[in-house]
Amino acid sequence: MTIDGMTDEGATTAADRRWLRRAIALSRSGMEADCGGPFGAVIVRNGAVLAEGSNRVTSDNDPTAHAEIVAIRRACAAADDFSLAGAVLYASCEPCPMCLAAAYWARVDRIVFAACRDDAAAAGFDDAHIYRELALAPDQRSLPMVALLRDEANAVFSVWNQKEDRIAY
Amino acid sequence: MTIDGMTDEGATTAADRRWLRRAIALSRSGMEADCGGPFGAVIVRNGAVLAEGSNRVTSDNDPTAHAEIVAIRRACAAADDFSLAGAVLYASCEPCPMCLAAAYWARVDRIVFAACRDDAAAAGFDDAHIYRELALAPDQRSLPMVALLRDEANAVFSVWNQKEDRIAY
Repeated sequence: MTIDGMTDEGATTAADRRWLRRAIALSRSGMEADCGGPFGAVIVRNGAVLAEGSNRVTSDNDPTAHAEIVAIRRACAAADDFSLAGAVLYASCEPCPMCLAAAYWARVDRIVFAACRDDAAAAGFDDAHIYRELALAPDQRSLPMVALLRDEANAVFSVWNQKEDRIAY
Repeated sequence: MTIDGMTDEGATTAADRRWLRRAIALSRSGMEADCGGPFGAVIVRNGAVLAEGSNRVTSDNDPTAHAEIVAIRRACAAADDFSLAGAVLYASCEPCPMCLAAAYWARVDRIVFAACRDDAAAAGFDDAHIYRELALAPDQRSLPMVALLRDEANAVFSVWNQKEDRIAY
């Protein structure tokens, strides 16, 4: 993947800073418009914007409407594809575990972010807490989890594994 | 939180098994209707269904449309609230990191699931892989991440911290 002549994954370019500044501008404009928290994201492929997003949790009453998720959903709609392979996600803040996992599912090639999870914590957001929780064994987490009926669910997975027209993702 | 007289968090009830079987039924019906992977979820509060969901990744071209995310978004829309405090999430499979983090953001009280992440892996899904990736330091992950312009993003967090009418979530 190359942006403006970037030749290795660790390198950053003027284009990276330009797209990341756009994500930061979206974090500010979304906040000012009372869309939600101060977070913005931009998804770029082949040097062009596929989609942008700001956090919309409180305006949409949607706890999943983080800037990155909004941008991923819009980018996939624009591309008419559930894969964003070849794309870069620019985010005004280090993605929370929900958004980072979404980036894996979306198959983006690379993430460039500005503020970190501790900066988000200082602004009142739970990103760092949720990262710590996910790293714990389920019975150590603050959110109780119980497992039941495993065989019944696995019977459905067996049907899936034998389904000839299944679409992998 | 009490469901049908459940008196401690580790205990499960006939109601838990009934709602979880509904989530498993949704995993099967969604798969059969070619909505996406074999996953279903139900969100229950005060003994009543707030919302249901099946995986819709491939039919909606939305990599974030896992059953749990679909159900959380629908439940919040039904409740007209970005918080699902007091609710239980029933999922046909252990939530992936995206969905588990979404459950934290949605403030559900408890999760009951059937199949586990290794069962999902055996059916071709990346849940266990993404759990391992998230636990790594960013520079150890297969998905490259770069941090830049931290101060510029933190300037927006400073405005947020001083914003008197901000809505926390």
